[in-house]
Amino acid sequence: MSGLFISFEGPEGAGKSTQIRRLSARLAAAGLPHLLTREPGGTEVGDQLRALVLDTRSQMEAMTEFLIYSASRAQLVQQVIRPALGRGEAVICDRYLDSSYAYQGYGRGLELSHLRAVSAAATGGLMPNLTVLLDIEPDVGLARAARVSHPDRIERAGLDFHRRLRRGFLELAAAEPGRFLVLDASRQADELEADIWGTVKGLLTGNAAQTTA
Amino acid sequence: MSGLFISFEGPEGAGKSTQIRRLSARLAAAGLPHLLTREPGGTEVGDQLRALVLDTRSQMEAMTEFLIYSASRAQLVQQVIRPALGRGEAVICDRYLDSSYAYQGYGRGLELSHLRAVSAAATGGLMPNLTVLLDIEPDVGLARAARVSHPDRIERAGLDFHRRLRRGFLELAAAEPGRFLVLDASRQADELEADIWGTVKGLLTGNAAQTTA
Repeated sequence: MSGLFISFEGPEGAGKSTQIRRLSARLAAAGLPHLLTREPGGTEVGDQLRALVLDTRSQMEAMTEFLIYSASRAQLVQQVIRPALGRGEAVICDRYLDSSYAYQGYGRGLELSHLRAVSAAATGGLMPNLTVLLDIEPDVGLARAARVSHPDRIERAGLDFHRRLRRGFLELAAAEPGRFLVLDASRQADELEADIWGTVKGLLTGNAAQTTA
Repeated sequence: MSGLFISFEGPEGAGKSTQIRRLSARLAAAGLPHLLTREPGGTEVGDQLRALVLDTRSQMEAMTEFLIYSASRAQLVQQVIRPALGRGEAVICDRYLDSSYAYQGYGRGLELSHLRAVSAAATGGLMPNLTVLLDIEPDVGLARAARVSHPDRIERAGLDFHRRLRRGFLELAAAEPGRFLVLDASRQADELEADIWGTVKGLLTGNAAQTTA
């Protein structure tokens, strides 16, 4: 039996944590073993890499940052995600490689073909069965994330970056409609929860984790 | 004017440090500005990654280790090596990507095609003009590195690993004879120094750092 691999994507402030918590509660209520993890991090080595990125990001080249995320991902896939899927568990990951494509690709301008080649090596081709994209207008998301009520104070460069990020996520989703569930994150949390659970329930009727070369 | 990029490769105990010091002295005597660096490390971020690898290598997947080395390399290329080459300086690097191919590819069994794809992204295709490979029998090199006089005490697995490593370096060199200078590191240091300096002098007559896509 193979497990089900679900990733959550979207900008900060989109409500990923809330929906991951709710999906976890649904799975628990249904008696389904599952594992929650996140990127970067999720392993001892990954947590050290996460701390290093947060500590020194200012002087870090975009490619360096991407390769560190990829190193954390390689460790997480081999030591945590693949073993859990092998035990037949569901795995819910807060961000996976789509975040790298959106942030370092669309956001910081690295070539997607390079990012894809590195990711194939890092993950051995392991892709989620389902990726939930919580889509939100950048000014709304940034305001939520910063807990400020004046999105007009967000500096121009920051907003442009987040617009590229949003366009990136939506283009990635459009290219793989079978993998992505795109939801308008400005809707009520209860509605989003119901939509996500409906899709996951459908997949739980026997889907296996897919790998692509 | 473009500088000259020289890497030194070989197992521990082959005498890289000695020959790098001697080449540096030759360049200095000739009044040629040059920069010495090493992998992993050579930048603040790189030194932190180096410490992390040395600290946690035991629990690290081979691919994770390779991606961390690649992150350190990306940072070093963009922040140190390319700027120095752009100023017309010579750059001498103690290990570069051939070490990754030998250690993580031939040594730990990762696919070379994956390693090459990642390296192209990490370095933007920057290859050394000259790679000096100091080749040595594994038992001799290990004995030198460990400063022990009984190579037969080296455990079997360690020796097998170093045989794969040596074969890797020699195959990489055979595939690119124009870039590699392969030297028998069991020869006298003075002779090796003369051979290396002869080759470098030849390249200093106008060669530019090459990039490949």
